[in-house]
Amino acid sequence: MCPIKDVTTITENKKITTLAAKNMLRTHTCGELRICDIGKNVTLTGWVQRKRDKGNIIWIDLRDRFGITQLMFEKNKTDNSILQIVDKIGREYVILAKGTVIERESKNPKLPTGDIEIQVNELVILNESATPPFTIDENTDGGEDLRMKYRYLDLRRQPLKQNIELRHRLARETRKYLDQNGFLEIETPFLIKSTPEGARDFVVPSRLHPGEFYALPQSPQTFKQLLMVAGFDRYFQIVRCFRDEDLRADRQPEFTQIDCEMSFVEQEDVLNMFEGLIKHLFTTEKNIKFDDFPKITYQEAIEKYGTDKPDIRFGMTINNISKIVQGKGFQIFDNSEVILAIVVPQAASYTRKQIDELTEFVKRPQIGMSGLAYIRYSNNEIKSSFDKFYSPDELKQIALFCNAQIGDLVLILSGNRKKTYKAMSELRLEMGNRLGLRSPNVYAPLWVVDFPLLEWDDETQRYYAMHHPFTSPKKEDISLLKTNPAQVRANAYDLVINGIEIGGGSIRIHSRELQQTMFNVLGFTNEETQQQFGFLLHAFEFGTPPHGGIALGFDRICALFGGTESIRDYIAFPKNQAARDMMIDAPSTISIEQLNELHIQINYPS
Amino acid sequence: MCPIKDVTTITENKKITTLAAKNMLRTHTCGELRICDIGKNVTLTGWVQRKRDKGNIIWIDLRDRFGITQLMFEKNKTDNSILQIVDKIGREYVILAKGTVIERESKNPKLPTGDIEIQVNELVILNESATPPFTIDENTDGGEDLRMKYRYLDLRRQPLKQNIELRHRLARETRKYLDQNGFLEIETPFLIKSTPEGARDFVVPSRLHPGEFYALPQSPQTFKQLLMVAGFDRYFQIVRCFRDEDLRADRQPEFTQIDCEMSFVEQEDVLNMFEGLIKHLFTTEKNIKFDDFPKITYQEAIEKYGTDKPDIRFGMTINNISKIVQGKGFQIFDNSEVILAIVVPQAASYTRKQIDELTEFVKRPQIGMSGLAYIRYSNNEIKSSFDKFYSPDELKQIALFCNAQIGDLVLILSGNRKKTYKAMSELRLEMGNRLGLRSPNVYAPLWVVDFPLLEWDDETQRYYAMHHPFTSPKKEDISLLKTNPAQVRANAYDLVINGIEIGGGSIRIHSRELQQTMFNVLGFTNEETQQQFGFLLHAFEFGTPPHGGIALGFDRICALFGGTESIRDYIAFPKNQAARDMMIDAPSTISIEQLNELHIQINYPS
Repeated sequence: MCPIKDVTTITENKKITTLAAKNMLRTHTCGELRICDIGKNVTLTGWVQRKRDKGNIIWIDLRDRFGITQLMFEKNKTDNSILQIVDKIGREYVILAKGTVIERESKNPKLPTGDIEIQVNELVILNESATPPFTIDENTDGGEDLRMKYRYLDLRRQPLKQNIELRHRLARETRKYLDQNGFLEIETPFLIKSTPEGARDFVVPSRLHPGEFYALPQSPQTFKQLLMVAGFDRYFQIVRCFRDEDLRADRQPEFTQIDCEMSFVEQEDVLNMFEGLIKHLFTTEKNIKFDDFPKITYQEAIEKYGTDKPDIRFGMTINNISKIVQGKGFQIFDNSEVILAIVVPQAASYTRKQIDELTEFVKRPQIGMSGLAYIRYSNNEIKSSFDKFYSPDELKQIALFCNAQIGDLVLILSGNRKKTYKAMSELRLEMGNRLGLRSPNVYAPLWVVDFPLLEWDDETQRYYAMHHPFTSPKKEDISLLKTNPAQVRANAYDLVINGIEIGGGSIRIHSRELQQTMFNVLGFTNEETQQQFGFLLHAFEFGTPPHGGIALGFDRICALFGGTESIRDYIAFPKNQAARDMMIDAPSTISIEQLNELHIQINYPS
Repeated sequence: MCPIKDVTTITENKKITTLAAKNMLRTHTCGELRICDIGKNVTLTGWVQRKRDKGNIIWIDLRDRFGITQLMFEKNKTDNSILQIVDKIGREYVILAKGTVIERESKNPKLPTGDIEIQVNELVILNESATPPFTIDENTDGGEDLRMKYRYLDLRRQPLKQNIELRHRLARETRKYLDQNGFLEIETPFLIKSTPEGARDFVVPSRLHPGEFYALPQSPQTFKQLLMVAGFDRYFQIVRCFRDEDLRADRQPEFTQIDCEMSFVEQEDVLNMFEGLIKHLFTTEKNIKFDDFPKITYQEAIEKYGTDKPDIRFGMTINNISKIVQGKGFQIFDNSEVILAIVVPQAASYTRKQIDELTEFVKRPQIGMSGLAYIRYSNNEIKSSFDKFYSPDELKQIALFCNAQIGDLVLILSGNRKKTYKAMSELRLEMGNRLGLRSPNVYAPLWVVDFPLLEWDDETQRYYAMHHPFTSPKKEDISLLKTNPAQVRANAYDLVINGIEIGGGSIRIHSRELQQTMFNVLGFTNEETQQQFGFLLHAFEFGTPPHGGIALGFDRICALFGGTESIRDYIAFPKNQAARDMMIDAPSTISIEQLNELHIQINYPS
């Protein structure tokens, strides 16, 4: 018996590998054969990765999902009819080769099958291939659009193939963990009801009910809450969700989430359970172990990092220096709502040019600051961009307030509170990048808790739910709901890893009265509430347990584990920025008969 | 340590059970405590199943997903404040109870927790409940419509709860088996392109592309084939599919299928792999083992059972007696295209009334026969409904031709071939029911193979693909495609269990030319083909491997394993016969702003 090394990433023992390998058309996969298989007669199938003609010998690298195996043909020995077939074969042809496993003369230690090759004695072309429009290699020469159109060819490339395999494993391990913790995977409907709150719905006209529409779910939120009302105790689903949004970078109109809900829980239960899930995924996929994830409040996250999605792979936290810099006659600071500083270690020696670059960075329209101030805290002297107004002692005092060490550079932004914190967060991340503190192989998870319940919107002059309208306020803040809604904190939490929001959730409202109050605070009349969420309020009358949950962005988790930026690379058939499937060319027009059946007609924009 | 008996159906060992049980609000579930837990102080949460007041003692049955535990209150001993709370509590209230586990005086052997009860010393009402509109019991008094509207209450009932748990386990075991066999679960898009072939699509208007629509997939057929082009070798997905059909009994506009595809395979590979899956599910769920599933051809299925979905839990196969009964002067038989007979064992003694009932059965409009003939093959004499035309010897010859034994009843139908086979199939099933040969606890799977590739449709005067346009014809029949399309057999197969089509699949076409020919046979012009399936034909130019697959109806599998008829009972939130979600009241109208954004307006039928 030939022991199996790491033949594939998804098969875990010999028995399984054998099962995966054997079909009527092949005896082994292209990732399977080893030195101990020498002498065996085998049949392999796959794609021609490349063909090399070295005078007397021709080699073909045969590729399938499981690996690459070298086929060998000798011009003097191999049957002439076979050589004629070899001659016809080009890149990406699908072939079947029978032959004997022999030891290679020059081995390839980089390839699991690199010790052997196949001396071919039978060869069949199963299908021909036109020349692909780009190379099927680790790094391809194809542009984005071309690769989207020929996605089935792009997916043949090793990096994309591995992404899809990674996604499979992450889904499998997620299900395993949740199943073992008593969660039931329960499917919720896709054809539901449109609600105006939240993002824009995709809708589906009903043929049987003229003038009526289903909506595709933005999340199974109300259904999972109804499952808790139904007593299912622990629910999960890896489920497609839909949002008809103008696509920003790295958004898809359809995306996948790990959706979960638990009954008879407090916030701590949900956090522990899903911290456990993330730890399980890191252990099984990367063999990385974590201590307990840190927890910081929303308030603290904003004050220290300028964002509710802090990247804590590095420090460089924000200092509010308003109090010590204001009132010294420097108008720019004195007229600012807030003055913030970060300390860049060992950067006092930055050149004028480097600092100009950073100034340009914060002046970009996306960030919109009017300038960048700094203090160089060097061995000999302390210098700043605003020396006129502050004595060296005062500058030193500022530097020390920020815990700067000699040799550090203090970067300072000032202005409107919200904008300046946001800008400082961007500048901090930029400095993290410049100093190499944001390695994709380092993972720093944390929980951000105690989010505000509501956000005021100036444009529509009303409050919006920061999370969603079903999130419960903290008990001690409920009384503020009617007097000072902006101050109410929610039992809401986000999981953030490396500055990316991986998921979020909350303990839900389970009292009918409180839910009605919440809708009222959000500006719904009782009638509107009844029409849109009546079924949920009604359900709350029949013994709803305390419950809470979380939803994790599965596409984003895959990208995080894969170590590249775009979620598109982890979706087999993604849409482009215009929400279009370039491969099948969707959306597309439909027939007039279809429109008639659906009782709709098109109003082209004038 | 207290060993755990069968606390729940989904948890397999102590560790897991403990994990599933413990939350901040409870120490144990209501299905967990045993005699060895006596003396423990515990906190339980759940719903009040019932309250019994027996003078000095009050009992409450507390229910959660995991079981029922009895709470006990003594009027003289229990704190008065607690008794006052008990007094307020009604059915379906959500409560939290702390207390001590004690041994019951009169044990309940039917309940896993029946040896113990909880002497309560702290009681909290977590939520009240209005009186449910129907009883939350094994058998409820609620009508179908009411239960659909309050689905979250209906789901609290034990039978529905168990169905949803069963579904979870079947999905889990399906994934486990396929993962272990090298299949990757790969998600395919939901927003795809409408194609006129097949059933009616649900469509989704595009906001970004005025006048254009996405379609929801009827199945991921083309995508899974493209995954084979991409080299993924073995794909599966448990995936929602959509069909906008007029709903017959037991159809849903959205349904779930186990969708699979394999590369470098022949029919035998697919059959073996998925026979393995079904065996795995029966072994793990029911501890039933099967021999190899029988295989019969479509032709044979029709001839022996009158249907391509034969129930082979019992014999009573169809005999074509045309040759031996025709030409004897009996006009009805002589004018019939076909005369068919089944032998009902030990039914010669059927009364006139019983036979009249069967005659009425075949004359029902759904079946539409004009009458039923019979032969009673008794000990003393042989009698028939058409004695005038046949001698007793001739009758006996007919009976013996059908392998009738003395005491049997031969039932005979005659008429048009297609209709008579169908009617005989119905009559056979009816007799199976009457004789108790169709127990839901007996399972008889089989493969039906060699389906015809095409079906002629009289109305539209064209051929349709019996399976779908991507199914490959048998090699030896390809030449008939242009000369005699109706005779071409397909590499297509169905899995049938107990007369229910559980799934079907085929070896696909992987040659561009053959696929184009197939579209032409189906009446597509080259232009139409290009517009609708151009992406697939184009993909076939780049090295498509031989491939095939199957799709299994997951809702139906659940119903089969659950042993009841309707798939609705296995879907958490099903639609009714009018494709309406009664609970959330969808579909519904949407706002004029939404319509405008989507560039559509409504055409109400006049």
